Amino acid sequence: MSLLVCKFGGTSVSSPERIRGVAKRLIERKRAGHKVVAVVSAMGKTTDELVELAQSLSQRPSPREMDRLLSTGEQVSMSLLAMALEARGFKAMSFTGEQAGICTDSLHLGARIVKVHAQRILNALSSGAIPVVAGFQGIDEQGDITTLGRGGSDTTAVALAWGINADVCEIYSDVPGVYSADPRIAPRARKLDEISYDDMLEMSAAGSGVLQMRAVEFAKKYHVVIHSRSAFTSEAGTLVKESSPMMEEAVITGIAHDTSEVKVVIRAVPDSVGVAAKVFSALAANRVNTDMIIQNISDKGFTDISFTCPAADLARARDVIDKMIPEIGAKSVDIDDSIAKISLVGTGMKSSPGVAARAFATLGENNINIVAISTSPIRLSIVIDSAQVAQAVRCLHSAFGLDADEVFEERQLSAEEIEAKLHKGR
Amino acid sequence: MSLLVCKFGGTSVSSPERIRGVAKRLIERKRAGHKVVAVVSAMGKTTDELVELAQSLSQRPSPREMDRLLSTGEQVSMSLLAMALEARGFKAMSFTGEQAGICTDSLHLGARIVKVHAQRILNALSSGAIPVVAGFQGIDEQGDITTLGRGGSDTTAVALAWGINADVCEIYSDVPGVYSADPRIAPRARKLDEISYDDMLEMSAAGSGVLQMRAVEFAKKYHVVIHSRSAFTSEAGTLVKESSPMMEEAVITGIAHDTSEVKVVIRAVPDSVGVAAKVFSALAANRVNTDMIIQNISDKGFTDISFTCPAADLARARDVIDKMIPEIGAKSVDIDDSIAKISLVGTGMKSSPGVAARAFATLGENNINIVAISTSPIRLSIVIDSAQVAQAVRCLHSAFGLDADEVFEERQLSAEEIEAKLHKGR
Repeated sequence: MSLLVCKFGGTSVSSPERIRGVAKRLIERKRAGHKVVAVVSAMGKTTDELVELAQSLSQRPSPREMDRLLSTGEQVSMSLLAMALEARGFKAMSFTGEQAGICTDSLHLGARIVKVHAQRILNALSSGAIPVVAGFQGIDEQGDITTLGRGGSDTTAVALAWGINADVCEIYSDVPGVYSADPRIAPRARKLDEISYDDMLEMSAAGSGVLQMRAVEFAKKYHVVIHSRSAFTSEAGTLVKESSPMMEEAVITGIAHDTSEVKVVIRAVPDSVGVAAKVFSALAANRVNTDMIIQNISDKGFTDISFTCPAADLARARDVIDKMIPEIGAKSVDIDDSIAKISLVGTGMKSSPGVAARAFATLGENNINIVAISTSPIRLSIVIDSAQVAQAVRCLHSAFGLDADEVFEERQLSAEEIEAKLHKGR
Repeated sequence: MSLLVCKFGGTSVSSPERIRGVAKRLIERKRAGHKVVAVVSAMGKTTDELVELAQSLSQRPSPREMDRLLSTGEQVSMSLLAMALEARGFKAMSFTGEQAGICTDSLHLGARIVKVHAQRILNALSSGAIPVVAGFQGIDEQGDITTLGRGGSDTTAVALAWGINADVCEIYSDVPGVYSADPRIAPRARKLDEISYDDMLEMSAAGSGVLQMRAVEFAKKYHVVIHSRSAFTSEAGTLVKESSPMMEEAVITGIAHDTSEVKVVIRAVPDSVGVAAKVFSALAANRVNTDMIIQNISDKGFTDISFTCPAADLARARDVIDKMIPEIGAKSVDIDDSIAKISLVGTGMKSSPGVAARAFATLGENNINIVAISTSPIRLSIVIDSAQVAQAVRCLHSAFGLDADEVFEERQLSAEEIEAKLHKGR
C-alpha cells in the first residue's frame, strides 16, 4: 500500500464529465489499495477568464487582489471533485491551499512555498476520506492568500507529497509521460521509463512542457519521486527521480525544442570597451531574460550585438534598446522571431566527448544552418531557423540513437479520440 | 463624519461596468467625509450557476462542499470591486467572510452568525483603505467555510455594522427604499422615510422583498440602523430603526402581497378527534411550513381541511397527504395555486380597532372574495384569488389613506433606463 498524491491539471477537470473521470481514476487508485490525496487546478480556461475580468477593471490590478481573485478557480474545482467522489459513495473533503497548510512567502502571483503543515490532510486520510486540495495557492504570514505562479499546481502537489511523506507524486496530464523528443514532430520519439531530476530540469528549461521546472526543482531538493502519466490511460508513464546506476546510461536522454524565443540584433555598435556591459546590464535591470549572446567579429570598429530572449520579454527589450541606441551610437535594431532552439540533454554527456561535433555534423549534412550555440555540462543548445525545427529534431534524434522501433499509437490520438476514450469511462 | 457599511447585491455587481458604478458610489460616500466598508454579493447569476454545476455532479452534494463552492462567488466580486477602487486611486482591501471575522455555527447552507471579530476591518479602515467584504459567508469553529443562506449578504452587512459599531448600514438595491405597497401594482404607493423594525419584519415576512427578514431581525436585536436605498440614485431611501414618537402614527404602515403560496384542500375528511392534529404534525415533521388553516363546517360527519403553504413546500406536502389519505379515510386532495395573500402591516393597528372591519368592507365593495384570514397584533393577512391581487392592494391602499398625491417617476424607469442612468455615472 502506497501513499499517493495525484495531481490533475485544468484540462482534466474542464467539465463535469471530466471531473467524474478524475473521480473514477482516484477511486481506482484507492481500490488498488493506495491512500490518495488529490490536487487540482482550476477548470479549463477559468484562470484566463478571471485575468480578463480583472484587466477590464484595472490596468494594473494589485497583486494581493489578483491572488484572491485567481485562487477562487481552484476552490471551485476542489469542491466539485469532492462532490463527484461523494456521489460515488466515497468520503471526500476539499481543502484550500491555506487549509492544506501550504505556507508561502508574500511574493504575490509568484509566491514560494516555505513550509507545509499538512496535519489536516493527514487527519482526513486517517478518517478514511480522500482529501482534495486546491493547487496553485497558499497563505502568507499575514494570513493573505497567495498564488504560486505558472505551473503552481504541480508545485503544490510535490510540496504536499513531501509534507505528508508520500511515496509518489503522480502528475496526470494529456500526455503519457516524458518523451525523448516531442512526439508531434518526432514520430519515433520514445517514452522514457525514468529520467533523473537533472535531466528533467534541463528538459523543462529547454522547452519541454510536460512538467513545470519549479516542481521538478522542489522534487529534486526534497527527494520526491514524480510519476508523470496520462489522465486517459492506466499505462505507467515516466518516473522522475534520483539518477541511479540502474538508469540506462545513454549519452543523450532527450531532445527539447523551444520556438518561444526571438533574436534581437543591434546593428553597427561602436566596438569599444564597456558597451556590451552597458547593454546587458540595462536589459537585466529591466527584467529581460537574455538567453544566448552572439557577437560578430568587429568590422572597421563596428560590430553587431545579438541576443535571444523570450518573446514575452521583447517589448521591454525594445524599450531598453531604443533608448540606448543614441547613447551608445549604434545604428538600428532588428528583431528576428523565426528562430528555434534545439537542446540535447543528458547527464551521460559529461563523460562522452564529441556530442557537439556529432550534432554539428548531423545538422550540416541536413543543410541546417546554426545561428548560435550555448552549453552546460549536461546540455547543448543550438539556435536554428524555426522553419527547420522538426527536421532538426528528427535527424538529431536518429543520429544519437534515440529512435524507437515503433511509432506509438497513443500519441497520435486526436483531441476528439482522447475525448471519446475519456467518455468510455476507463 | 459617519462610519458606514454599504452593501451591494448581485444585480449591482453583475458586470465590470456595474462594479465600476459601485466603486464610484463608494468613493462619493468617502469624499463626503464618511468612513466606508463595502459588503458585496456574488456577480449576477453566479450562485445559480455554481448550484447547477454541483447538481450535475451529485444529486445531494454535501453541505460542507456546497458551502466551499458557493463562497467563491462573493470572493470574485470582492476582489474585482477592490481592483476597481484601486484603479481610481483609492486604497482598498478585500476580505473573505473568515478574514472579516464573521464567525458562525456549523449549520452549512444556513449558518447563523455567532460572533464578529472585525479587528482586521478596523485596522484596514485606520490605514485609510476601503475594506471590501465578501457577503453571505463565514467560518465555523472547525475552520470550515459556511454560508448564511438566502439573503445572507444583507445579514453580513448588518452583523458587520454591529461589529464595527457603524452609524448606519446602507443596503443598496434596484428600488429606492421601502414602499407602502409594491409600486409596480399600486402606482400611488409612497416611499416611506422611516419604518420600525417590527413593521419591517412583518412586511418582509408578508412578502415585501426589499430587505431580508433575517437581516432585519439581526438589526432589531442589536439596534443597527438600516438605510434601504437605490444603487442608481443618490436620493435618501428608507430608514429602518426603533419605532419612535417622531415616527408618523399611521394605523397602517404598508401593504405587502405574496403570490408564492398555494392552497391545499383535503376533501371529505371524517370529522373525528385527532385527525387534524395527525395531518398537521406529519406536515411539520416533513418541513412543510403551513401558513393559514381553514376548516369548513362539518357536513354529515365529513369536512374539508384546507391550508396554505409556500409553493416550494408543495412537493413535500403532496407526499405527506397522498400517504395519509387512505389512513385517515379522506376522499382526495386538490391544489389551488391561484391564490394571493395581502397583508396590512402597522404597529398603529394595536391601538386602532376596526382595521379588519374596514378591510373586509373595502374588499366586499370591490367584489373581492375572501378565502382565508389570519392576524397578528400588528398584521392582518387575507387570502384572495390571485387574479384580483393588484385591485385588492390598490383599493386597500386608498381606503387606509396611504395614497400619495403623485406618482413617482423613479419607479417607472425600465431596466434599460436604469442602465442608462448608471452609465451616466451618477
